Amino acid sequence: MAKHLEETEVSSRTVFQGVFIDIRRAEARMPDGSLRPREYVVHPGAAAMVPIFPDGRVLVERQFRYPLRRTFVEIPAGKLDPGETPIETARRELIEETGYRAEQWAHLTRIHPAIGFADEVIDIYLCRELTQVGRQLDAGEFLDLEIVTVDWLVDELRAHRLTDVKTQIAVLWLEQMRAGRWPWPEFDA
Amino acid sequence: MAKHLEETEVSSRTVFQGVFIDIRRAEARMPDGSLRPREYVVHPGAAAMVPIFPDGRVLVERQFRYPLRRTFVEIPAGKLDPGETPIETARRELIEETGYRAEQWAHLTRIHPAIGFADEVIDIYLCRELTQVGRQLDAGEFLDLEIVTVDWLVDELRAHRLTDVKTQIAVLWLEQMRAGRWPWPEFDA
Repeated sequence: MAKHLEETEVSSRTVFQGVFIDIRRAEARMPDGSLRPREYVVHPGAAAMVPIFPDGRVLVERQFRYPLRRTFVEIPAGKLDPGETPIETARRELIEETGYRAEQWAHLTRIHPAIGFADEVIDIYLCRELTQVGRQLDAGEFLDLEIVTVDWLVDELRAHRLTDVKTQIAVLWLEQMRAGRWPWPEFDA
Repeated sequence: MAKHLEETEVSSRTVFQGVFIDIRRAEARMPDGSLRPREYVVHPGAAAMVPIFPDGRVLVERQFRYPLRRTFVEIPAGKLDPGETPIETARRELIEETGYRAEQWAHLTRIHPAIGFADEVIDIYLCRELTQVGRQLDAGEFLDLEIVTVDWLVDELRAHRLTDVKTQIAVLWLEQMRAGRWPWPEFDA
């Protein structure tokens, strides 16, 4: 850790508890010794997944996202429940949101979506050997499922229409792997 | 817009105004007619940029990010000031954070980092023809500048050490463009 950049906590407390969002505010000591407030969304973490069919097509969702007042094409994802590991969340959310169970899982990568104002981390997985077991959407959750080609996703991304970050990153990794430029991760989970 | 996914606003208000973060809570009508709360961070938007030197190396920052209590390698970025367009923010933040002015700009893409809980949008630019004019960091801003190769960034990304989403996405686009697989955007701004 670069000591000359490090900020240390003097005190901190929860300053807002909402229906879905909690905010923590800290007083932090800066590298020059001064004190500054720091504020961020406390997030439980999330898991996202790319479900891959034998023909290479993948399962995505189309979902209305209220903050931006429009629908997005996204890979399935969900927040960690208390005590859950990311792979457990991934298995549970895949079934709940899409109705598919996957036999084989591989960890693709980990991303930090909003390092300026949230402690969120998303673990992204690939999964395959899918069987339909029936979905169980949460209350207030409405989404369409679509099975699409990676080519279509890459085209949407290049046309700036696929803007959700977890999905963009998954598609850009997929594009490298299916072209044989990067190795696939091991399906060991 | 897919009507069967659309949520419409019944009412909304600001429920938290922090030092850096504001939260808005809405009562929204779901596609099935029920009412649900929706809550999100109101964000002014941001601009990020990849400053490219004549030898192909790029300028990145290393910065401590309080929510995650560690430093991240990132491309330079900053929030829009009131009334600013994203390209104006990009020009201003490049000088303030790095001390470089760029003569040529190209819009690379637009991303939505946290569609579940924030309305943030980041426009990512490429820029070149850099000259040093001296940086003007904001109070409480401490960061290192590093000039690195795209190869190094790709290696860091593949090793899961480059996890900031705007930087990962910029690097994955760069990798496609410099290999000649995708065209470079026009430097027209």
